[in-house]
Amino acid sequence: MAVQLEVLRERLARFASERDWDQFHSPKNLSMALIAETAELIEHFQWLSEEDSKNLDAEKQQAVTMELADIFIFLIRVADKLDVNLADAAWKKIEINEARYPVEKVKGSAKRASEY
Amino acid sequence: MAVQLEVLRERLARFASERDWDQFHSPKNLSMALIAETAELIEHFQWLSEEDSKNLDAEKQQAVTMELADIFIFLIRVADKLDVNLADAAWKKIEINEARYPVEKVKGSAKRASEY
Amino acid sequence: MAVQLEVLRERLARFASERDWDQFHSPKNLSMALIAETAELIEHFQWLSEEDSKNLDAEKQQAVTMELADIFIFLIRVADKLDVNLADAAWKKIEINEARYPVEKVKGSAKRASEY
Amino acid sequence: MAVQLEVLRERLARFASERDWDQFHSPKNLSMALIAETAELIEHFQWLSEEDSKNLDAEKQQAVTMELADIFIFLIRVADKLDVNLADAAWKKIEINEARYPVEKVKGSAKRASEY
Repeated sequence: MAVQLEVLRERLARFASERDWDQFHSPKNLSMALIAETAELIEHFQWLSEEDSKNLDAEKQQAVTMELADIFIFLIRVADKLDVNLADAAWKKIEINEARYPVEKVKGSAKRASEY
Repeated sequence: MAVQLEVLRERLARFASERDWDQFHSPKNLSMALIAETAELIEHFQWLSEEDSKNLDAEKQQAVTMELADIFIFLIRVADKLDVNLADAAWKKIEINEARYPVEKVKGSAKRASEY
Repeated sequence: MAVQLEVLRERLARFASERDWDQFHSPKNLSMALIAETAELIEHFQWLSEEDSKNLDAEKQQAVTMELADIFIFLIRVADKLDVNLADAAWKKIEINEARYPVEKVKGSAKRASEY
Repeated sequence: MAVQLEVLRERLARFASERDWDQFHSPKNLSMALIAETAELIEHFQWLSEEDSKNLDAEKQQAVTMELADIFIFLIRVADKLDVNLADAAWKKIEINEARYPVEKVKGSAKRASEY
């Protein structure tokens, strides 16, 4: 069974609290840590072709998995500090996107996707 | 009850598939979209003090919530395209971090936190 | 004749000073503004193929030119605030890179390039 | 005398050419490398207060100087590949900014600065 988002949130809050790191975890600082981790994902892909980015070898796959974990961890932390329920926010945003990009208008168009 | 990560993943996969957008959703491209969304979060905080980043007004709180949703959406998408279970990866990474940063060694130290 | 880096630095310092913006221009904040601008460049390229990123239409070329200008502006500002001479630093770093990546070892290899 | 931007551009072009790296240096890829380097600057500042980011110790100052060099290097490269004259573009953008943010309207206001 998959680990619940709420369980992760609580465990990460305890992790920071036990280490007395909440003093560093302002939303401003956490947003910086979040983008720094995201950039480490970028680094794995920057010299690969799109095609190669779909077919990573085992070592790179493992490294990329850990980068995704780091991104997720800081995303959960910054959302927690801002009292945002990530899953509910995403659900709501998907509904907005579904209304904004009707299938018949944007099908197959990257231009459409990026304009919004 | 909170929306499940798996439900979000499926809905986003269907969203892209219905719009024929999988052709643009290589891990390389999605990592770029992910960092672009993360930077929009950064923009909200760049001229704020740390303290002010903890106390957003209602309008900014709403805007920031939608940025977090966008980040989460692209994170779920890139993880899905790489066959990574985000929650399991985060759980594993937290275990690694717990071993790497023992409370007694790093308590209250940002230097410690950033060195790892 | 090309505009000198030093002239740009001075003009940007005066721009901030006249507007009483130095109070917001800590290196921390400027690094955030810098990455936010860099992400706007990323946005232009995220759904394009590598090939298409080499052949922008006139409108996109103009938009990208202004993004590069924004990045350069904030890079000059953060360097100025840290008393770093950008051109000298780059020159020194190129010398380091030339020693680190000898032609005969890294020729034609992206793997080599990214490992360093 | 300061190193000229044009001299840096030429030296970096030769550096890539000698190593047969132009094949990897599409604007898309270079924009990714640029943001990855920018994130390394962010990492230096993410747990520091704004005040501390103004007063780095010698070791950190040296590290940050090299990050700024890396950012500048990739910025010059991507501009070169897009046939953009960085200094001229910045000059033009500063003129636009001067018209857009008249001193009397935005003086001392971060809100003003960020709204534009």
